[in-house]
Amino acid sequence: MTKFHGVVPPVVTPLNPDFTVDYPSYTRVLEHLLGAGCHGVFVLGSTSEVVFHNEKTRQEILEHSVKIVNGRVPVIAGVLDATTDNVIGHAKVAKAAGAAAVVVTAPYYTVTSQPEIIDHFRYIKDAVDIPLVAYDIPVCVHAKLARSTVTTLAKEGTIIGLKDSSGDDGNFRYALLDLAEHEDIFLMTGSEIVVDNALSMGAHGVVPGLANVDPHGYVRLWDAAQRGDWAAARKEQERLCRLFEIVWVAQSRVSGGASGVGGFKTAMRSLGIIDTNVMPRPRQALDAAESARIDAILRSTGLLG
Amino acid sequence: MTKFHGVVPPVVTPLNPDFTVDYPSYTRVLEHLLGAGCHGVFVLGSTSEVVFHNEKTRQEILEHSVKIVNGRVPVIAGVLDATTDNVIGHAKVAKAAGAAAVVVTAPYYTVTSQPEIIDHFRYIKDAVDIPLVAYDIPVCVHAKLARSTVTTLAKEGTIIGLKDSSGDDGNFRYALLDLAEHEDIFLMTGSEIVVDNALSMGAHGVVPGLANVDPHGYVRLWDAAQRGDWAAARKEQERLCRLFEIVWVAQSRVSGGASGVGGFKTAMRSLGIIDTNVMPRPRQALDAAESARIDAILRSTGLLG
Amino acid sequence: MTKFHGVVPPVVTPLNPDFTVDYPSYTRVLEHLLGAGCHGVFVLGSTSEVVFHNEKTRQEILEHSVKIVNGRVPVIAGVLDATTDNVIGHAKVAKAAGAAAVVVTAPYYTVTSQPEIIDHFRYIKDAVDIPLVAYDIPVCVHAKLARSTVTTLAKEGTIIGLKDSSGDDGNFRYALLDLAEHEDIFLMTGSEIVVDNALSMGAHGVVPGLANVDPHGYVRLWDAAQRGDWAAARKEQERLCRLFEIVWVAQSRVSGGASGVGGFKTAMRSLGIIDTNVMPRPRQALDAAESARIDAILRSTGLLG
Amino acid sequence: MTKFHGVVPPVVTPLNPDFTVDYPSYTRVLEHLLGAGCHGVFVLGSTSEVVFHNEKTRQEILEHSVKIVNGRVPVIAGVLDATTDNVIGHAKVAKAAGAAAVVVTAPYYTVTSQPEIIDHFRYIKDAVDIPLVAYDIPVCVHAKLARSTVTTLAKEGTIIGLKDSSGDDGNFRYALLDLAEHEDIFLMTGSEIVVDNALSMGAHGVVPGLANVDPHGYVRLWDAAQRGDWAAARKEQERLCRLFEIVWVAQSRVSGGASGVGGFKTAMRSLGIIDTNVMPRPRQALDAAESARIDAILRSTGLLG
Repeated sequence: MTKFHGVVPPVVTPLNPDFTVDYPSYTRVLEHLLGAGCHGVFVLGSTSEVVFHNEKTRQEILEHSVKIVNGRVPVIAGVLDATTDNVIGHAKVAKAAGAAAVVVTAPYYTVTSQPEIIDHFRYIKDAVDIPLVAYDIPVCVHAKLARSTVTTLAKEGTIIGLKDSSGDDGNFRYALLDLAEHEDIFLMTGSEIVVDNALSMGAHGVVPGLANVDPHGYVRLWDAAQRGDWAAARKEQERLCRLFEIVWVAQSRVSGGASGVGGFKTAMRSLGIIDTNVMPRPRQALDAAESARIDAILRSTGLLG
Repeated sequence: MTKFHGVVPPVVTPLNPDFTVDYPSYTRVLEHLLGAGCHGVFVLGSTSEVVFHNEKTRQEILEHSVKIVNGRVPVIAGVLDATTDNVIGHAKVAKAAGAAAVVVTAPYYTVTSQPEIIDHFRYIKDAVDIPLVAYDIPVCVHAKLARSTVTTLAKEGTIIGLKDSSGDDGNFRYALLDLAEHEDIFLMTGSEIVVDNALSMGAHGVVPGLANVDPHGYVRLWDAAQRGDWAAARKEQERLCRLFEIVWVAQSRVSGGASGVGGFKTAMRSLGIIDTNVMPRPRQALDAAESARIDAILRSTGLLG
Repeated sequence: MTKFHGVVPPVVTPLNPDFTVDYPSYTRVLEHLLGAGCHGVFVLGSTSEVVFHNEKTRQEILEHSVKIVNGRVPVIAGVLDATTDNVIGHAKVAKAAGAAAVVVTAPYYTVTSQPEIIDHFRYIKDAVDIPLVAYDIPVCVHAKLARSTVTTLAKEGTIIGLKDSSGDDGNFRYALLDLAEHEDIFLMTGSEIVVDNALSMGAHGVVPGLANVDPHGYVRLWDAAQRGDWAAARKEQERLCRLFEIVWVAQSRVSGGASGVGGFKTAMRSLGIIDTNVMPRPRQALDAAESARIDAILRSTGLLG
Repeated sequence: MTKFHGVVPPVVTPLNPDFTVDYPSYTRVLEHLLGAGCHGVFVLGSTSEVVFHNEKTRQEILEHSVKIVNGRVPVIAGVLDATTDNVIGHAKVAKAAGAAAVVVTAPYYTVTSQPEIIDHFRYIKDAVDIPLVAYDIPVCVHAKLARSTVTTLAKEGTIIGLKDSSGDDGNFRYALLDLAEHEDIFLMTGSEIVVDNALSMGAHGVVPGLANVDPHGYVRLWDAAQRGDWAAARKEQERLCRLFEIVWVAQSRVSGGASGVGGFKTAMRSLGIIDTNVMPRPRQALDAAESARIDAILRSTGLLG
């Protein structure tokens, strides 16, 4: 297959006040991303608040996404679940719905190990004929994908890529070096704030939650890196770092999870992309004062007039 | 309602070689527990490997349990899921299936906070009319239920009890002291190895996974504590501590999760209670050498001739 | 040697306003403890704020302690340092000053391992002819003494005992079981709040910081346990648990370290045992409002009229 | 003062077989570093194994370093200790010995907080008239310097710089952005493997332990970055990443601390820079097989013929 690459945002899932998915807003999010030149979309990831949705809603979100995207870019789908066979169940649905690849974490809730994680990916690969992307997100999973786990799975063909949201850029660099000669493997960073670094090290793509708010910024950053203009890349990245401060606006009042995605949703509401900043329970939405502080950040970073 | 109490084992879920639930073995587990005098059963908990089963299987397990137990003791059901509305979905199923109460953890996978955890329990209580038991298991959930979270929820009537698998006996003691005058609240330890201590501090029950292997031992321990014979309680507990070493037999080869429940299953197979020691994927079952080491422990603790 | 046993408080180090040791107050602390019937004293431990004092002051504190105690009970001395040869240096000073035994943690600051910890204790034993007590305090050292580390060192004669401040009562029980037949080994808990449990499991002693405030309470608890009156032991322990809440009075304002020992010092000042509640830098002392809250706890637990 | 900058290696402390400092080898290390063009040296840091040395040896090492360096570059000295007044003691010695600045961590062993850390630095600044550099090394200290702690201390003039060994490059970037207009503040990364990234983000210097083995490599990397040749910087960095694998050669046998610095020493011995690879107790030195594996890495990265 063609290697995935570029800016692949994890798509925020807008909600109605009754906590159902707001599909008209969702459609606008997708068009906003594609209109800015994003190279793919990652639906049903952590930023999508996938674990707050039941199986039926997950399927609907994915089917809606595939329909709206309509082949313009690849749709990669998270199939997150705590254990192997439940992941396989989601992966079959994702394949049927038209996902180009599925994104799989290590097992969670259960106490696991690296050999068990390797088995987990192999069982899934054996069960469903769809490309697998490994998702390293220890802040949620509480297990890190070891360098040797990633390289073993990649070299043997079990996974075609990695989304690294671990924040361990040194380890990510070793994955890039170890797999440099495997042209079919792509390695993406989940960072919002050191994307220029990741691209400079050779990363093939970036999956920034903040791209829901400012996809143009990340596409400009990507384009600058592609042409080797690292000064421009850094300048764009630094502006995006200032924008990223929206994720901490509510941190003294709500949970870390609610503050981050809640900051994205609140900004997207201010920008007219989505209708509400409703969060799935038990997450609380940001309040008016927090929204005002987010607007100030949007203005200072050039997104709001 | 009558306060729950006594020995309430978290029921192991035996599997067939094809990973489906082995219901004939499951029935034997339940009869083994009730025949030994256990005061309740906790199905679909961590020891039951609940997160390895899909919604349909969870429902079948619970319905089967309720049918077999047939009112002899209360059936408490785990409704574990990462987020509020998914827990509510499970809880509705559990209520319909006849569970006496449901057991709920803090949110997991998502990054949470104590206020959010409190909201989580309140939302569930509002949505489903069934008694809630809080389940504190930070080794899986990666958040600890704070003392103030438990006492707030208990005093306001949101939860009727606690299963404390945190290993923090000092904190558990404070919960017992804080709620001593709330006669309707019951507090159970999830420990296998300091149960005499927990009962001496005033715990109302115990939920030991090891009781699947030796329910008579835990009932004797409970009875000794009830009559104030702490020397006998300690002696029984110390024998059970030696038995508990089965959970570490495979720890150098398989994951911590697989080694623990796998040790229980392997012992239960040796004792003729269940037919296989099959583990759900990606957990590996214990091998023949490990099984032999477990048999040696069963013999030295008087369970195998 | 005779096995150590009983209530062995870690002695608080009172300070003058200029941060020098207030020896008249220090003498009163020792007399307060011995007058209450404590069976030994542990100086230069974490509660003594040993790491805040330089080598010269450490030596003076120990020499003063030995002089005042004057053989009435054993004086056990902490020789805490990050690495082996520095510990050996302290241990030689402690031996010369008349300590009955020295208390040694795992290496800290440096990233260590269980085999390295075992070597650490062996090197110290080889270098200094004084009994060694292992000190398990992962909240400070950030490494836990594994069960096998403790039993290996005890069985081979490298250590004569353990002070377990890990809060892991299950693991402590296994140490008690593993070493039950080694009559020369003593195992003490560092807990303040589950001492009855530790004694019920067979612990030989207790090292509670809170005994600086209420040594009579811990001696009563010890005596009740010795005569097997577990109901009286529990009642005394529960009162002490209420008293222990002084350690959290200042937790929202100062660090955890300052709040705990600072609570002890502030209570001891209110009780007239020491002159100031001065804390070594950078720890802040408790303020007047916090002191008033501590006095309320002292009154409600019967220590202040 | 002139801002510090460039490649400032943390100097390895070579030992004789009797664990005393091997000063002839030490001198060769310094000449090796200065001969390669390093812009400063950092003595008595974690790589120097400072916490393994007593006060007298620390002083000797520093005095020897100042004498040998003889003003050719600045000598920055670690004054690591667990608490404020002990750090002040070391800092006075360091000032007297001619250190250009002293490097200070947060308190360790004791449980601390960000406000207490801020006080810690302020007390030291008040007590000793020498520039302070904050050292963020949570793997040893077990507390992270928060972004706001660093910026507060820098903006008010308490610290003149930061050595960031936290591995959190996103947080480091925010420190760079927050302090961009403070021309007298310098921010250095402690990383060995993402130095090109740190320099691309605007870091003023780098403190790589691996520069003891290959200072020319880091100077070439620095020079490439200064002229904006990021392709050359990346290529050099990638070679150094391969060289850095020496730190894991012994990781299955010795502790993490011993494996890392032990790998440096063993490589330096192979390169003829120092005479032994002796490690301070309880660290074990690398053995012959491990040394052979290190030599292979030295050959494959061009350092050994």
